[in-house]
Amino acid sequence: MADKKLVEAITSMEEDFAKWYTDVVKKADLMGYTSVKGCMVFKPAGYAIWELIQSQMDSMFKETGVENVYLPMFIPESLLEKEKDHVEGFAPEVAWVTQGGLQPLQERMCVRPTSETLFCDFYKDDIQSYRDLPKVYNQWCSVVRWEKETRPFLRSREFLWQEGHTAHATAEDAEKRTIQMLNLYADFCEQVLAIPVIKGRKTDKEKFAGAEATYTIEALMHDGKALQSGTSHNFGDGFARAFGIQYTDKDNTLKYVHQTSWGTTTRLIGAVIMVHGDNSGLVLPPRVAPTQVMIVPIQQKKEGVLPKAYELRDRLSKVQGTVGSLRVKVDDSEKTPGWKFSECEMRGIPIRVEIGPKDIEKDSCVLVRRDNGEKITVSLGDIEKEVASLLERIQKEMLERARSHRDAHTYIAKNMEEFEKLFTEKSGFVKAMWCGDQECEDKIKEKLSVTSRCMPFEQEKISDTCVCCKKPAKALVYWGRAY
Amino acid sequence: MADKKLVEAITSMEEDFAKWYTDVVKKADLMGYTSVKGCMVFKPAGYAIWELIQSQMDSMFKETGVENVYLPMFIPESLLEKEKDHVEGFAPEVAWVTQGGLQPLQERMCVRPTSETLFCDFYKDDIQSYRDLPKVYNQWCSVVRWEKETRPFLRSREFLWQEGHTAHATAEDAEKRTIQMLNLYADFCEQVLAIPVIKGRKTDKEKFAGAEATYTIEALMHDGKALQSGTSHNFGDGFARAFGIQYTDKDNTLKYVHQTSWGTTTRLIGAVIMVHGDNSGLVLPPRVAPTQVMIVPIQQKKEGVLPKAYELRDRLSKVQGTVGSLRVKVDDSEKTPGWKFSECEMRGIPIRVEIGPKDIEKDSCVLVRRDNGEKITVSLGDIEKEVASLLERIQKEMLERARSHRDAHTYIAKNMEEFEKLFTEKSGFVKAMWCGDQECEDKIKEKLSVTSRCMPFEQEKISDTCVCCKKPAKALVYWGRAY
Repeated sequence: MADKKLVEAITSMEEDFAKWYTDVVKKADLMGYTSVKGCMVFKPAGYAIWELIQSQMDSMFKETGVENVYLPMFIPESLLEKEKDHVEGFAPEVAWVTQGGLQPLQERMCVRPTSETLFCDFYKDDIQSYRDLPKVYNQWCSVVRWEKETRPFLRSREFLWQEGHTAHATAEDAEKRTIQMLNLYADFCEQVLAIPVIKGRKTDKEKFAGAEATYTIEALMHDGKALQSGTSHNFGDGFARAFGIQYTDKDNTLKYVHQTSWGTTTRLIGAVIMVHGDNSGLVLPPRVAPTQVMIVPIQQKKEGVLPKAYELRDRLSKVQGTVGSLRVKVDDSEKTPGWKFSECEMRGIPIRVEIGPKDIEKDSCVLVRRDNGEKITVSLGDIEKEVASLLERIQKEMLERARSHRDAHTYIAKNMEEFEKLFTEKSGFVKAMWCGDQECEDKIKEKLSVTSRCMPFEQEKISDTCVCCKKPAKALVYWGRAY
Repeated sequence: MADKKLVEAITSMEEDFAKWYTDVVKKADLMGYTSVKGCMVFKPAGYAIWELIQSQMDSMFKETGVENVYLPMFIPESLLEKEKDHVEGFAPEVAWVTQGGLQPLQERMCVRPTSETLFCDFYKDDIQSYRDLPKVYNQWCSVVRWEKETRPFLRSREFLWQEGHTAHATAEDAEKRTIQMLNLYADFCEQVLAIPVIKGRKTDKEKFAGAEATYTIEALMHDGKALQSGTSHNFGDGFARAFGIQYTDKDNTLKYVHQTSWGTTTRLIGAVIMVHGDNSGLVLPPRVAPTQVMIVPIQQKKEGVLPKAYELRDRLSKVQGTVGSLRVKVDDSEKTPGWKFSECEMRGIPIRVEIGPKDIEKDSCVLVRRDNGEKITVSLGDIEKEVASLLERIQKEMLERARSHRDAHTYIAKNMEEFEKLFTEKSGFVKAMWCGDQECEDKIKEKLSVTSRCMPFEQEKISDTCVCCKKPAKALVYWGRAY
């Protein structure tokens, strides 16, 4: 039996989901606080998840020709102001540096909230000819947005992310890259994080400041709220015109480049917590679990138990996983087995291996799945094969379970009555038709406190008229309450 | 023959080493400029070297129990001020954020120039008991110091680095970790960057603001100037007392922790350029070469040439190297072979493979070493083995060559006359005895414009008296002109 002391300390998600979330973040030791208001500390258990996200997403990037770079963290005010929509969107929420060393700066600079303007300033000189295109650059860094309300992983004044910024010869190439990266994000979420997502386009109201089109992946959390989990923007030649980024084409004429940008952040960790977690704590998909297997010796002081535990660790650590070899540990601390079980559960470790004198006698051990509690007795001789295939099965079943939950919490509304009723009684995505008019979008937001999440790529026609104004409908929209 | 157009564009290092350096940085496409004064852009070729440094150093860290974290980039002024020596050392060169969003901040914050104060603020709450020790945390991030004069990789207002910050129960544990990390840095420089270093302790004048002792690794560049390439600091309990970081020991008494910090930066890339580069451009040690092997097809339009080049690339790409598999490319562009050769040289690619119709006929190809120009004809059947062992040989010989250069430019001075003569006529390290008095250190600096680089761990007694004041000597010191 798992020791309940650790577990009792967390609020149940049914009682208070927000409190459950912060309890898990704290008890699983993912984040900490400092005196810097609105900023957080990624503790080892939290940062290790980010490292696993980084390494796997970065490999996927590189397979599509992405190259990593690093640009400065400061943006001079005059640079930020060059693209009108962009500065309006970001200026109110940036941090300003006004003094360098002992001198006030002649021009103040903000800490990057995003780096479109810096990349444009760089591309302006770096791109001369069609031979220099495309540029498909990305950087892993932190950005700053002066948020008033913050929540671990989901919203903080400084957060970690990757931002890709590309420049292309044609509008078609830019659109293709925008969609390619959105698809990559969706594949990443499904395959690595075991989180199913809806791919779609943002309405004009919700798109990025300065973009022609913003595409998004939207995931549904366990409490039925939506989380925008990654976005990809097509800028057309808007930034190129504002910054004068031109290239000489094969026909010897000067043309503006077409640009895109795309980003995902550490809020993906928040998504993992809120999609998979339960009342015993974190539940990590094997591909982002810093420890995938924890071996807990039973009666570890009995002769032969600890050596057998270490032997299993060494054998399992040689098995090739998705990223390097399997990540396996032995908890040989002085705590009781029950306490260790609870810790494994709180920290979301996918498989716990229990091995004691009786198991050794029978030449077997017990594998316990974190995601569903299932116990499987396996022969020690088969442990490599059993653990490797179980990790794959867990990864797959976690995605299936999340997809079932998402589908079971996706509703259809044909008119405002249904729409209101759903958001009063249920929690989840609601699919409804929309006329394309921002007025209706605003009305719906005001009335139901929900936002348009996206116009999905997979369009359906669930009625002919807008759910709000009853004029002819132009698109199916996913609506939801969002983080 | 290599095409000379690219090469002619760089200044020779004998003519003007500083100009040679910036030419190489530019022509090898490592860095770029933006409108942000004093800050630089890491272009793909430059950033890829940093990624290779990161991944290999990070593995070495983790083998010693280091865990990665991420702390905020901002330090409230009151926090920076808590340790007296530390704030005096850093306050004059930080960037200050005074406004967040549309509001002026109640307390201004600096962008971290280093994170001792943030880690202390975090450890103060995170450490309670001896069970919580040691803490061996590290972060990979950027820091800002408001430098007036900047040079690519060597000195810029923002630079990338790693900073380790540890807390220990005893002074002995802290000293042990300080030395362990310095040794790790030295091993890294020798094994990965092929740069030999002198390990030693800084004089009090040169130590880190707030440290009890600073240890350093010092490398000698090709022009005879020294480059401080990594430092490791023992803080004793100074910061712990200033921040109140105490733990309850086994005997139930409250004790202060003992702390260390250690860092290396992107200036290591500058060291690689200045130790190994030549008048044809960059020369990269195989372990940090983003492309290790460039296959250049000769008469690539002739039947069979390109397919053979791709076949060799695919075969070589399957060979396991130090980090993943070998990094191999084919230059199938429309440029002339001569131009491609020059580009390989400028970019420092360790091995160029030349393969044309005549080679294919003889079932062989030519390997050309970047470091010494040697050409080796090998049978195509053996290419995996030949290339893998050649890369290892190059790595080893580059270290030996750098060590010979360093040793040939290390001199001994027994008195001021010799000392002056050496720094007038020669360029390199000068070993001389020192009384331990800062007055002599200051005099030497004033008179010869050289600084004490370190008191090496391997002490020798080359005379009984201080080179400057002739009082009894306390230590052998390495002196040099430094970057």
